[in-house]
Amino acid sequence: MLRGLNAGFALDARLEADSEPLMWLGLCELRVMNDRRFPWLILVPQRPGAEEIHDITPLDQAMLTFETNMVAQALKRVTGCTKINTGALGNIVRQLHVHVVARNENDAAWPGPVWGHGAREPYAGEDLHRFIETVKAAL
Amino acid sequence: MLRGLNAGFALDARLEADSEPLMWLGLCELRVMNDRRFPWLILVPQRPGAEEIHDITPLDQAMLTFETNMVAQALKRVTGCTKINTGALGNIVRQLHVHVVARNENDAAWPGPVWGHGAREPYAGEDLHRFIETVKAAL
Repeated sequence: MLRGLNAGFALDARLEADSEPLMWLGLCELRVMNDRRFPWLILVPQRPGAEEIHDITPLDQAMLTFETNMVAQALKRVTGCTKINTGALGNIVRQLHVHVVARNENDAAWPGPVWGHGAREPYAGEDLHRFIETVKAAL
Repeated sequence: MLRGLNAGFALDARLEADSEPLMWLGLCELRVMNDRRFPWLILVPQRPGAEEIHDITPLDQAMLTFETNMVAQALKRVTGCTKINTGALGNIVRQLHVHVVARNENDAAWPGPVWGHGAREPYAGEDLHRFIETVKAAL
């Protein structure tokens, strides 16, 4: 039986449909958005009911910061991107989640945000699996 | 003469043009975007050359988290908004800055992001000053 702060946590159905699991961090599940237009990772703190970052405890906030920045640094290293975009929006999916996206001058939404831009384009063949392995190796 | 980590810090010209100073926090200058479409605050860490959150020291990262979440909580309280959106993008303005925006179902960009959405609409008359005083009182 699950115990502790993450007891009863269930991933939002839309997050589950749009992204694939990558690995567990200390506080968050790290997932990858299945959208080949952008190298795009999502951290989901395992805290049931949390919608805003300030809803979680100060210790969890510090952990989330640490994990987000570790992921951002690794993603920038493996992609060689121009800029990392991080964001916690939640206007559509209310379950607290943090986006970490690698951006480049020639990407589909540059210099605008990725959120709400066009339609998701799933990876083809083994490309998603390869991207997952690359990120895992960098973490 | 300025000394220490923030010696030589100069605010980006576009941030200076689009926003007004609100108050000094420990690490960041808190500014308000002069856009009446959205209650929109910006934190600018006083660290010359920083572009990514992972560029600043772990202590600064923790401070930035603390200040961002304090500001987010206050902004949610005074606006009664549906959702806080936070983001660090920097695709256009590279100087590190963190957006904290109060979002509502009936706002101009809902449920999309505010960044890149239409044109900024400056506050009229004393409205910006009143908003600044409201946020100051809540912090």
